[in-house]
Amino acid sequence: MARIVQKFGGTSVADIDRIKSVARRVQREVAAGNQVAVVVSAMSGVTNQLVGWTNAVAALPDQREYDAVVASGEQVTAGLTALALQELGLKARSYAGWQIPIRTDSAHGKARIESISTEGMIAGMEAGEVAVVAGFQGIAPGERIATLGRGGSDTSAVALAAALKADRCDIFTDVDGVYTTDPRIVAKARKLDKITYEEMLEMASLGAKVLQTRSVELAMNHRVRVQVLSSFNDLPGTLVVDEDEIVEQQVVSGIAYSRDEAKVTLVKVPDRPGVAAAIFGPLTDSAINVDMIVQNISEDGTTDMTFTVTKADLARTVKVIEGARPTLGFKELKPDSNVVKISVIGVGMRSHAGIAQLMFKTLADKGINIQVISTSEIKVSVLIAEEYTELALRALHTAYGLDV
Amino acid sequence: MARIVQKFGGTSVADIDRIKSVARRVQREVAAGNQVAVVVSAMSGVTNQLVGWTNAVAALPDQREYDAVVASGEQVTAGLTALALQELGLKARSYAGWQIPIRTDSAHGKARIESISTEGMIAGMEAGEVAVVAGFQGIAPGERIATLGRGGSDTSAVALAAALKADRCDIFTDVDGVYTTDPRIVAKARKLDKITYEEMLEMASLGAKVLQTRSVELAMNHRVRVQVLSSFNDLPGTLVVDEDEIVEQQVVSGIAYSRDEAKVTLVKVPDRPGVAAAIFGPLTDSAINVDMIVQNISEDGTTDMTFTVTKADLARTVKVIEGARPTLGFKELKPDSNVVKISVIGVGMRSHAGIAQLMFKTLADKGINIQVISTSEIKVSVLIAEEYTELALRALHTAYGLDV
Repeated sequence: MARIVQKFGGTSVADIDRIKSVARRVQREVAAGNQVAVVVSAMSGVTNQLVGWTNAVAALPDQREYDAVVASGEQVTAGLTALALQELGLKARSYAGWQIPIRTDSAHGKARIESISTEGMIAGMEAGEVAVVAGFQGIAPGERIATLGRGGSDTSAVALAAALKADRCDIFTDVDGVYTTDPRIVAKARKLDKITYEEMLEMASLGAKVLQTRSVELAMNHRVRVQVLSSFNDLPGTLVVDEDEIVEQQVVSGIAYSRDEAKVTLVKVPDRPGVAAAIFGPLTDSAINVDMIVQNISEDGTTDMTFTVTKADLARTVKVIEGARPTLGFKELKPDSNVVKISVIGVGMRSHAGIAQLMFKTLADKGINIQVISTSEIKVSVLIAEEYTELALRALHTAYGLDV
Repeated sequence: MARIVQKFGGTSVADIDRIKSVARRVQREVAAGNQVAVVVSAMSGVTNQLVGWTNAVAALPDQREYDAVVASGEQVTAGLTALALQELGLKARSYAGWQIPIRTDSAHGKARIESISTEGMIAGMEAGEVAVVAGFQGIAPGERIATLGRGGSDTSAVALAAALKADRCDIFTDVDGVYTTDPRIVAKARKLDKITYEEMLEMASLGAKVLQTRSVELAMNHRVRVQVLSSFNDLPGTLVVDEDEIVEQQVVSGIAYSRDEAKVTLVKVPDRPGVAAAIFGPLTDSAINVDMIVQNISEDGTTDMTFTVTKADLARTVKVIEGARPTLGFKELKPDSNVVKISVIGVGMRSHAGIAQLMFKTLADKGINIQVISTSEIKVSVLIAEEYTELALRALHTAYGLDV
C-alpha cells in the first residue's frame, strides 16, 4: 500500500465528462490498494471568468477580496470531483483550503504555504476515504482566504504530498511528461523518463510551462517524488527525482527557450565606479527584475551596458532609464524585443568540460550571432535574435545527442 | 445613527453593473451615518449553473458536497460587492458563512441557523467598515459548509439583523413591495405600506414569492422590522411589522393564489374508523405533504375523500394511493391538476364576521364553483378550477375594497 497525491490541472477537469474521467483514474489507484489525496484546479475558463469579474469591478482589486472570489473556482471542482468519486461507489469528501487548514502567510494573491494540518485528512484516508482538496488556496492570518498565485495548484499538491509523507505526487496535465525540448518545434524531441530536481527547476524558470517553479523548489527541499503525466492517456510520464536515482545521466538533459525576454542596451555610458548601481538601482525601486547583464570593455572612458528584462516590463524599463539619463549620461538607449533566450540544461555539466563551447560552435556554424551569454553550474543561456529560435533549437538538440 | 441590514437578491446583483449599482445604494446609507451589513445572493444564473453541474455528476448528490459547490456563488458576489464598495472609497470586507461564523444544524441543503457570532463584524462596523455577507449559507457541525435552501438569503439577512440587533432589515428584490394581490393579474392591485408578520407569513406560504416563509417566521419571532423594496428604483417599499404598529388595519390585507396545488379525490371509500390514517399514513411515509382535506358526509357506508398535494408530488401520490388500494378499497381515484388555491388574508378577520361569506358569495355571483374550503384564524382558502384564477382574483379584490 502506498500513499499518493494526484493533482489534476484545469484542462484535466475542463468539464463534467473530464471530471468523471478523473474519478475513474483515481478509482484505479484506490482499487490498487493505495490511499489517495486528489488536488484539483478550477475548471478551464472558470478562473478567467472570476478574474474578469474582479477586474470589471476594480482595476486594482483588494487582494483579499480577489482571493475570496477567485478561490471559489477550485472549491467547485473539489465538490464535483468528490461527487463523481461517490458515484463510482468510493468514499470521498472535499476540502477547501481553510477546512484542512492549509495555513499561508499574508501575501494574498501569491501566498506561501506555512503549514498543513493533516490529522483529519489522514484519519479519513486510513478509513478508505479519498480526500479531494481544492488547489491554489489556503487560509491567511485573520482567517481570510489566500491564493498561491497562478499555477499554485502544483504547489498545493507538492506541499500536501510533503505533509502527508506521500510516496508519490502525480501531476496530471495536458502533456505527457517533460521533453528534451518543445516537441511542437523539434519533431525529434524525446520524453524524459527521469529528470533531476535541479534540472526541472531550471527548465521551469527558463520557460518550460510544465510545472510551476515554486512547486519544484518545494519538491526538491522535501524530496517529494513528482511524476508529470497526461490525464488524456495512460502513458508513463516523467519522474522528477534526486540526482542519485538517475543511473545513466545525460550530460545535457534538455533545451529550454523563452520568448519572454527583451534586451536593453545603453551605449557609451561614462565608465566610473558605481555606474552599475546607478543603472539598476532605479529598476529595483520600480520592482523590475533584471535577468542577464553584460558590460563591454571600457574604451575612451565609456562603456556599453546590455541587460534583459521581461517583455512586459520593457516599456516601463525604458521610461525609468530615460528618467535617469541626466545622472547616467549615456549617449543612446536601444530597446530590442526581438530576442529569445535559449538554454541548455544538465547536471552532467558539472563534471564535463566543453558544454558551453559546443553550444557556441553549433550556433556559429548556423550563422547565428550570440548577443548575451550567461552561465550557471548546470545551464548555459544565450540571447539570440528571435527569428533563429527554431533553427537554434533543432541544431542544439542534434548537437547534444538528444534526437530520438 | 442606525444599524441596517440590506439584502440584495439574484436579480439585484445579476451582473457587474448591477453590483456597482448596489454599492452606490449602500453608499447612501453609509453617507447618512448608518452602520450597514449587506447580505448578497448569487448572481442570476450562477446558482442554476452550479446546481446543473452537481446534477450532471450525480442524480442524488451528497448534500454536503452539493452545499460546498452551490455556496460558492454567494461567496463570489460577496467578494465582488466588497470590491465595488471599496472602489467608491468605502471600507468593506466580505464574509463567507464560515468566517463569521453562522452556525447551522446538520440538515445540509435546508439547514437551520443556530447561532451567529457578531463580535468581529460589529467591531468592523463600528470602525466604519461595511460587512458584506454571503447569503444562503453557514457552517454545520464537522466544519462543513451548509446551505439554507433556495431563497435562504432572506433568512440569512433576517437572522443577521436579529443577531446584530439591527434597526431595520431591507430586502431588495425586483418588485417594489408587497401588493394586495398579483399586479400582473389585477391592474388595480395596490402596494401595501405596511403588513403584519402574520399576514406576510400567510402570503409567503400561500404563493406570494416576495419573501421566504422561514425568513418571515424568524422576523416575527425576533421582531425584526423588515422592509421589502425594489433595487431598481427609489420608491418606498412595504414594511413588515408588528400588528400594533398598524393604526388603521384593513379587514383583508391581501389575496394570494397558488397554482402549485393538485387535487386528488377518492370516490366511495368504505367509511370506517381509521380510514383517514390509512390514506394519509402511506403519504407521510413517502414524504408527501398534504395541504387541504375534505371528507364528505357518509352515504351507504362509503364516503368521498378529497385532498390536495403539490403538483410536483401528484404522480407520486397517485402511485402511493394505488399501491394501497387493496387496503383502502375505494372505488375510483380522480387526480386533477387544473386547480388553483385562492386565499384572502387579514388579521382583521379575527374581529370581523362575514369575511368568508363575502368570499363565497362573490365567487358564486361569478358562477365559480368552490371545490374545497379551508380556513384559519386569519385566512380563508378555496380551491377552484384554474381557468377562473384571474376572474376570481379581480372580483375578490373589488369585493374586499382593495382596488386603488
